[in-house]
Amino acid sequence: MKVRKLVIVGGVAGGASAAAKARRCSEEVEIVIFEKGSDISYANCGLPYYLSGVIEKRENLLITSAEFFRRRFRVDARTNCEVVQIDRKKKRLVVNNLASGVTEEESYDRLVLAPGSHPIIPPVPGVDLPFVSTLKTLEDTDRIFDFLKEKKPQRALVVGGGLIGVEAVENLALKGLQTTIVELAPQLLTFLDWEMAEKVRWHMLHKGVNIHLSEGLVFVGEQNGQGIVRTDQGREIPTDLVLIAVGIRPNVDLAKNAGLELGITGGIKVNEFMQTSDPDIFAAGDCIETINLVTGKPTLTPMGSAANKEGRAAGANALGRRVVVKGFTGTIIVKVFDLTVAKTGLSEREALAEGYSPLALYVDPSHLAGYYPGAKTLSIKTVTERDSGRLLGAQVIGEEGVDKRIDVLATAIYHHMSLEDLLHLDLAYAPPYSAARDPVVIAGAVGQNYYQGDWNPITPKEVREKMNSGEDVVLIDVRNRLELARQDPLPGAIHIPIDNLRREMHKLDPDKETILYCAQGLRSYLGNRILAMNGFKRVSTMSGGLDNWMYELKSADSS
Amino acid sequence: MKVRKLVIVGGVAGGASAAAKARRCSEEVEIVIFEKGSDISYANCGLPYYLSGVIEKRENLLITSAEFFRRRFRVDARTNCEVVQIDRKKKRLVVNNLASGVTEEESYDRLVLAPGSHPIIPPVPGVDLPFVSTLKTLEDTDRIFDFLKEKKPQRALVVGGGLIGVEAVENLALKGLQTTIVELAPQLLTFLDWEMAEKVRWHMLHKGVNIHLSEGLVFVGEQNGQGIVRTDQGREIPTDLVLIAVGIRPNVDLAKNAGLELGITGGIKVNEFMQTSDPDIFAAGDCIETINLVTGKPTLTPMGSAANKEGRAAGANALGRRVVVKGFTGTIIVKVFDLTVAKTGLSEREALAEGYSPLALYVDPSHLAGYYPGAKTLSIKTVTERDSGRLLGAQVIGEEGVDKRIDVLATAIYHHMSLEDLLHLDLAYAPPYSAARDPVVIAGAVGQNYYQGDWNPITPKEVREKMNSGEDVVLIDVRNRLELARQDPLPGAIHIPIDNLRREMHKLDPDKETILYCAQGLRSYLGNRILAMNGFKRVSTMSGGLDNWMYELKSADSS
Repeated sequence: MKVRKLVIVGGVAGGASAAAKARRCSEEVEIVIFEKGSDISYANCGLPYYLSGVIEKRENLLITSAEFFRRRFRVDARTNCEVVQIDRKKKRLVVNNLASGVTEEESYDRLVLAPGSHPIIPPVPGVDLPFVSTLKTLEDTDRIFDFLKEKKPQRALVVGGGLIGVEAVENLALKGLQTTIVELAPQLLTFLDWEMAEKVRWHMLHKGVNIHLSEGLVFVGEQNGQGIVRTDQGREIPTDLVLIAVGIRPNVDLAKNAGLELGITGGIKVNEFMQTSDPDIFAAGDCIETINLVTGKPTLTPMGSAANKEGRAAGANALGRRVVVKGFTGTIIVKVFDLTVAKTGLSEREALAEGYSPLALYVDPSHLAGYYPGAKTLSIKTVTERDSGRLLGAQVIGEEGVDKRIDVLATAIYHHMSLEDLLHLDLAYAPPYSAARDPVVIAGAVGQNYYQGDWNPITPKEVREKMNSGEDVVLIDVRNRLELARQDPLPGAIHIPIDNLRREMHKLDPDKETILYCAQGLRSYLGNRILAMNGFKRVSTMSGGLDNWMYELKSADSS
Repeated sequence: MKVRKLVIVGGVAGGASAAAKARRCSEEVEIVIFEKGSDISYANCGLPYYLSGVIEKRENLLITSAEFFRRRFRVDARTNCEVVQIDRKKKRLVVNNLASGVTEEESYDRLVLAPGSHPIIPPVPGVDLPFVSTLKTLEDTDRIFDFLKEKKPQRALVVGGGLIGVEAVENLALKGLQTTIVELAPQLLTFLDWEMAEKVRWHMLHKGVNIHLSEGLVFVGEQNGQGIVRTDQGREIPTDLVLIAVGIRPNVDLAKNAGLELGITGGIKVNEFMQTSDPDIFAAGDCIETINLVTGKPTLTPMGSAANKEGRAAGANALGRRVVVKGFTGTIIVKVFDLTVAKTGLSEREALAEGYSPLALYVDPSHLAGYYPGAKTLSIKTVTERDSGRLLGAQVIGEEGVDKRIDVLATAIYHHMSLEDLLHLDLAYAPPYSAARDPVVIAGAVGQNYYQGDWNPITPKEVREKMNSGEDVVLIDVRNRLELARQDPLPGAIHIPIDNLRREMHKLDPDKETILYCAQGLRSYLGNRILAMNGFKRVSTMSGGLDNWMYELKSADSS
């Protein structure tokens, strides 16, 4: 059948990509986009940065326009038009023109659904008050922008400590507002493991953000002319502005009502060609269910980068091509003040939930050669399938060079590389860009050392559990005196500087379980080797060192 | 046989890594390092940056010390000691103590050779004059540093436009010197393809560097109390300082005289365990021959990052371990003023020389979303095995984000990915780090478009050849009027802005060979689709657009 008319529902990332690609596949097909909002293809991911002024002009957010699509691609892009119904038998749509109020019908030969997602609004009294908003669309952003300009709020409270919440907080803080996060989970950024998320929390606290974890919003109201928020812990927080960023859900009502199959994640089910259960209907973007390339299982990937690929494939395939979207490794990155926080693949918690036996290792190398100015420490956590050695995921946090390492790791995970493969990568080295041992290569070497039996890692969490349960464990701090003065050793630890270990090890009992630690794990690894080769039977190294332990300690103090 | 004594020749990158790793493999083995220079493990790659003051203190260059190696690793590191002979039968070495002048003998059970490489000095009169130096060792650097301080030279001439030459020029220019490069090859940085190297040349010219290509040094002398350099083109260049950086050769005399096998590249031949033709002798670093992971053939990889891996493996394997070094993808990166210039795998020229039928494609995307402040253009050239689609190499030049993309590409090449695989990578996206379509993903999409027959790339070089040979070709410039005013169209090109192409294509002859171009190639790709789908039989797109062509033009003007 010749496709004479392609209709696309949604004109932001997925829809716009579909339209442009479809035109490159056929000069003859009629292409119509219906977009509910008033703009085509705006910079969704840039919205928080417009609030702070990092992105200076609103026009910069408008990547393209309906007029441009008409001119360049002969695409009839109709904004303020909401498709409310699909009649799959007749291949007709019901469209509400939100500007004129008129309802029209439209035919299609092939359809691409790219309606995106919508923010979840908790069912709490007061979320409809004028100082409460979501931050999802350009309309939301305009509203908040005007609110900031006119009302000059001093305080903002963000409900939700996920990607958007954290980005919103940073940009509002840059704008001079006193910010607070209320998050239901016991950590920020739940895609991270807890101890990695703690690094983010401490950085945000240091930047003056108030953070309340494990607290749910129960009420928003006004009191003595000022806004107030109440949590399920009984906390009352006065505020001038509330942003709701607790998550998003795929827009599937249209598909569902038309009888299209949904996946177990709640997204529209599509095959690798982005084709729904109706072969004439394709879908792309936040509304669909994708494949996690690590587990092979369905997931949601509500990212602009994913939507562009999916839209491109949907647009081509709707016109008879065979363009595949294999899936995603779950790569995420977010700027949090001076930190960059990134993840790809599975966290340790996710790996456990998937039934893997994960090996979690930490390294804390410098992003540049230590001798080059501006070198900063990276915190890298790798998660590996213990038996096979296959790399399952990685988390990287630091001030510089994080995005590079996460992209290398995402590429490795895409191709099912092992942890040890990282050692073999020939990564670019010159002093302005990396160290002779790149952090990713170090992670690979540390992994090879583990698999060759050269050390026995133990996580700070396991160490704390042993200490708390009163196990008979010898803890050895191998740092130097200066470091000890700056940061106390763990309770009960014996101090033996690494360079004295050979001299003093006769004082230790080689049959006792012995755990070594230093600041980050390099010296304790050497210590582990020294003791193991001198007949100590049960030696281990606290992975990531005291830098990792600190979060165990601090979290015990706080909350 | 129990290894009681391990001797290591050379104590910089490879040797120091070998020693530290060896100790972690055995507490009992006696480890001796003989280092010819006066320092252990200094920051070789940082030397140029110390000249300019980017690295402020000399002590920062000293990564570690003989004393540290003694204390931490119980390694007997003897500096100023040159090993001059190996008696493999008796397993004994002859060592000259350069400080005392005494010659000693030393036994070994296993030996690791890591003597590095030496700079090539062209056999030209005057290269031994006091204002002529190489820039290879800390001693060289100290000498130049003192020369800069005492003599306050105004002009420096660097012989050789490779990595070290270019780094030296940048750092001397930062120091305020007027700099000149004389290079024998017709381009700088010969690991790049010519047109990519031209981008570097133009940037350096713009920074005030004098560059003479295809010129060889024939004489260095003094005239009227000032230094003078003469080239084989008869050019005479007055200068105050001459740096020789024409390349390096592996130090293999010791190995050769001992009867160890050398490879065809001139480096010491080793297996994947870094073992030489004598099973008790291992080797690592600049002195060895490695494997190019793209071709599977021998190569030299004189990089600190390689030396560290090789040394680590050699140190372990000398003590009975089985640590493999697979080889290298040939990743190179260099800072050239505001540009970062990088390559991995094969250049187009190298691919041709290896007998591949390479497909060279160019993309010039923005390193960040265009709407985010600070977005800069990247120039990416991919080289692919045309039939199989396997990615063979990539070159990336730009102001920001180059190192990230080359490392992703190096990872892809390590794992024999295809060009199209790049499209599927789930690279980290948030506005401060990338664009929704990452440059690497764009390179993959452009490749997929090629393999799906959606466009027909032609290189600027091929276009010029067609124009010069007077072929009957229709050239169409699809840029807009504003761009045309800023930069003239190619001679004979017809101007049809992309958005008018559908309207005006009836004026064109669909049977004639038609070549479209724009600034970078995106719009001409759309034009290629439009014409091809409207019955034009021989349409192609100039890959990389006018930005690429410019180097064709400029090079025709200059030289």
